Amino acid sequence: MEHNLRHADSVVRNVNVYNSYFRRFDPADVYIKDGRFLYIDKKRCGEVTAKEEIDGKGRYMIPGLIDIHMHIESSLVTPEAFCAYTARNGLTTIVSEPHEIANVCGRQGVKAMIESGKKSPYDCYYAIPSNVPIQGREFETSGGTISFEDMKELKDEEGIICLGEVMNYREVIGDDRSEVGKFIDYIREKEPSYPLEGHCPELKDADLAAFAYRGILSDHCTHDLEELKQRFECGIFVQLQDVMVTKESIDFICENGLYEYFSFVTDDTFPDILLKKGHLDAVVRKAIGFGMKAEDAIYSATYTPARRMNLLDRGAIDPGKLADFVLLDDLETLHITDTYKKGNCIYSSGKPEEEREEYTLDHRFEDTVHSRIFSEDDFRITVAGKDRDVNVRVMKLYSDNNRSDEVFVRMKVKDNRLQWKQSGCQLVTVIERHGRDNRIAYGFACGPTIKEGACASSYSHDSHDLIVMGNDEEDMAVAINRVIELEGGITAAKDGKISAEIALPIAGLLSKKPVTKTAEEFVKVREAFTAQGYVHFNNIMNFCLMSLTCIPTLKLTDRGYLNTKTFELLDLCEEIES
Amino acid sequence: MEHNLRHADSVVRNVNVYNSYFRRFDPADVYIKDGRFLYIDKKRCGEVTAKEEIDGKGRYMIPGLIDIHMHIESSLVTPEAFCAYTARNGLTTIVSEPHEIANVCGRQGVKAMIESGKKSPYDCYYAIPSNVPIQGREFETSGGTISFEDMKELKDEEGIICLGEVMNYREVIGDDRSEVGKFIDYIREKEPSYPLEGHCPELKDADLAAFAYRGILSDHCTHDLEELKQRFECGIFVQLQDVMVTKESIDFICENGLYEYFSFVTDDTFPDILLKKGHLDAVVRKAIGFGMKAEDAIYSATYTPARRMNLLDRGAIDPGKLADFVLLDDLETLHITDTYKKGNCIYSSGKPEEEREEYTLDHRFEDTVHSRIFSEDDFRITVAGKDRDVNVRVMKLYSDNNRSDEVFVRMKVKDNRLQWKQSGCQLVTVIERHGRDNRIAYGFACGPTIKEGACASSYSHDSHDLIVMGNDEEDMAVAINRVIELEGGITAAKDGKISAEIALPIAGLLSKKPVTKTAEEFVKVREAFTAQGYVHFNNIMNFCLMSLTCIPTLKLTDRGYLNTKTFELLDLCEEIES
Repeated sequence: MEHNLRHADSVVRNVNVYNSYFRRFDPADVYIKDGRFLYIDKKRCGEVTAKEEIDGKGRYMIPGLIDIHMHIESSLVTPEAFCAYTARNGLTTIVSEPHEIANVCGRQGVKAMIESGKKSPYDCYYAIPSNVPIQGREFETSGGTISFEDMKELKDEEGIICLGEVMNYREVIGDDRSEVGKFIDYIREKEPSYPLEGHCPELKDADLAAFAYRGILSDHCTHDLEELKQRFECGIFVQLQDVMVTKESIDFICENGLYEYFSFVTDDTFPDILLKKGHLDAVVRKAIGFGMKAEDAIYSATYTPARRMNLLDRGAIDPGKLADFVLLDDLETLHITDTYKKGNCIYSSGKPEEEREEYTLDHRFEDTVHSRIFSEDDFRITVAGKDRDVNVRVMKLYSDNNRSDEVFVRMKVKDNRLQWKQSGCQLVTVIERHGRDNRIAYGFACGPTIKEGACASSYSHDSHDLIVMGNDEEDMAVAINRVIELEGGITAAKDGKISAEIALPIAGLLSKKPVTKTAEEFVKVREAFTAQGYVHFNNIMNFCLMSLTCIPTLKLTDRGYLNTKTFELLDLCEEIES
Repeated sequence: MEHNLRHADSVVRNVNVYNSYFRRFDPADVYIKDGRFLYIDKKRCGEVTAKEEIDGKGRYMIPGLIDIHMHIESSLVTPEAFCAYTARNGLTTIVSEPHEIANVCGRQGVKAMIESGKKSPYDCYYAIPSNVPIQGREFETSGGTISFEDMKELKDEEGIICLGEVMNYREVIGDDRSEVGKFIDYIREKEPSYPLEGHCPELKDADLAAFAYRGILSDHCTHDLEELKQRFECGIFVQLQDVMVTKESIDFICENGLYEYFSFVTDDTFPDILLKKGHLDAVVRKAIGFGMKAEDAIYSATYTPARRMNLLDRGAIDPGKLADFVLLDDLETLHITDTYKKGNCIYSSGKPEEEREEYTLDHRFEDTVHSRIFSEDDFRITVAGKDRDVNVRVMKLYSDNNRSDEVFVRMKVKDNRLQWKQSGCQLVTVIERHGRDNRIAYGFACGPTIKEGACASSYSHDSHDLIVMGNDEEDMAVAINRVIELEGGITAAKDGKISAEIALPIAGLLSKKPVTKTAEEFVKVREAFTAQGYVHFNNIMNFCLMSLTCIPTLKLTDRGYLNTKTFELLDLCEEIES
């Protein structure tokens, strides 16, 4: 290796450089050699020379942003498309947890995501999906599974650097026989410093300690202040996503100087939010808005996430670290003008932006919606026996969060049919789509649901079976049949016609289009949902989470209703005792 | 694995527990299971039970101390003996760099140290010796060498966790062809987060940046404040040894809140210092004495060193971390009453202390002083030619540090003999002892040297050839012959007799005795040195460093005088031009 360490490839002159250890900016020239920072020259007396000069125009230079907890699939595009777009958000390293695609395509799906990520302009790392299917196979049907052996194999894949969020948090602190439980014991013995990522809403005190005792040392869930405090006290690395960036949490972190022990993350970012608000940069901006000093906020989006992931070759502008950096022309608004990866410009606000027409993953995964076509009849519910009233189990939704609780609504049975149309509830149907048995489960929802027509999706957490909701059998059939015809997607239907749609032909989860086009289509679907009465802060998300079995309390899978606290499968109707 | 996480093996009740993240103490009961902390119970409402109870008596509970830069050999005992003794100093993990033994016994010596460390009551990890011999083979003769291939092999040894201090700091920032340079390039490619430890006195600005650019990201040398500041700015992890714990450096660290980026270390601790002052605990105590809050000082002797070494399973009292802890009955004086490793008591001030009579390493290393016996004649220096005066090159020593600078002293040549006895200088002789050629090199020293009789040692950094100094040929022969007879050791002689001695039969470096006995003998040698006029803050150390070629400026090896800045071998005498 050539080691003339007095001669650089390039120099960025005239910048205010962020120093991570003193958390301050210093005017300097920054020399880069072989994709790494060589020298932060504050004295400017010509000790080092460079082949190429870049004018920094007095801008702020900060390390490239690092997001260590996120799911690319939430943006409904391929990793390649996602990364190509988000260079503008200052990202230079991400760690994505691909459990959505793993639920459809298993280990091979994860490998396809890795391959796509390799075509990224920046480092796209992955976590091993830890809970696929999210709960036991008796509770829902996924297309793929990730076993203990799969986890061991994935661990050795290049680009995989941690175990993804362990979501069966009640199981791992109890009599744990889960696949991920086996992997945790295995990896802690073998590599005690391997990062094990967590997901543990609610847990406190001895339960939370038990979770940490298993070595799972991060959490990105929504918490009250006491829960947040307990995580810091336990040595659990806090990953603060957008909804957790509140005045209260930011004040708590600043007052206690906890900058070392948390990072900002995004978790799930739908494509329209990505376009409108941004990505990790938006979360950092929000924290600054709540009074965190920009110098402190930057630290927890660069230095601390790198360290949490043992990526000690980045996250600061130091000699020897990867020359991943961002130029800002304003500190408070964090306005990004340029992004560099290993010394190469991967985004510049001055250059025209190009997006490819089409992005693909492995073509095998473009045929994953295995289902017959549905008719109105499929949405008529047979209840045997004499005409009578029954108590029907219903998921009560809320407009400001994604939980759903159990309530009972009295409905009539007439001629062996449940008379639900006048109940004010919407029918929800989940249909197995991974080529097993096309099993159909029925449930109902009330609250801020769609009110007119129907909506349907092949993107429905975490097993991604088909889901359709509505109050009109014809619209329900139209909506779901179009999803099937598209080989995956999200649709809305009204008056017997599709009112909006987005095709998600890759695994029934991802669009082949670039971010901007995907976002355009997605917004139309979101607007149709809203126009048809689905009033929720994130209506599509809310719809896609009606089958997610790690959120309280009553959820619907292709196996039927599941109480997600007790893990009991529950009947649709209960007889009324006379 | 059994996972009843509500039932512990033991509980330490009634302690004030250190929380690393808030850097404060909380009253709590601490539950331990399978050698790890299970729950820090501040609520004490009986959520968790335990088989065994330990009364903490209201003491302070802090994580076990972690020393990540030290050389066991400096304490002149085996790793097993060292660790058995230093449990009382609160140590529960050390990372030792065994380059002394490597210079005598090569890779096999390192492996023997690892084996001995495995018999320790706590975790005794090692660094790969990086510069053996310290400079090129043309400058000195060591017994062992560590090549690039050796480093690769040692890297995979269990218990080796980092690359030890890279001392050829001028070479690695220049046209580097060293063995360690090859290893650095190799390991950064393969494992970018593997810790590479450094030693870089003097380096600043672009030179320091070049050192960091190579990925060598720690330093434990002595520095002024500007040099210290530059290390922090560069992302170089600072290892603060005793001499660097000054009011000035402690104030600087506290004012800038740099607790994350440094740790306390000991580097070299002679056995008498160990007995009298302590070990890492003494360094922490000193920092507290200079005004660092105990809560902050503890952090940098537990949490930050663990992280620097990627030992993420320890360094804090958290659920899931190794139950390594220390009980203190006073915070300011850091008075240690008990030390626990993985939940087991390894030291208690209440229990009688036992030391074994003898500790051994691999017996192969008890025959490493290969030398003939010397006579007075060997210390008479022949200079050919007519009778005349010559300018003799002399190492000028200082009483407050270990450097030695070049001066010239005029001496007579008569009958082909150098007439040095009246010069006021002491003769210094370095003799190859590793079975090559018994080559003898002569030099002189002036300043605070031994003034009467002679002293000799087989422990002489870094190649550990034989060294003898004195102004009487007979005493010099007596002193060195006794070292040879002992198969290694340090001796003083006067009036034709040995005045004090310590046997170091293992590799000519280590005693077979426990720490207390070794210290007793060592003190007698130190006192004899002093009584014979060697007045220096650490006279034995100063003597053993006269051959250390990484300290400025003029040093003596078996190859003769070496200028350690220019790496020129220099003659003993220069002719005076007439």
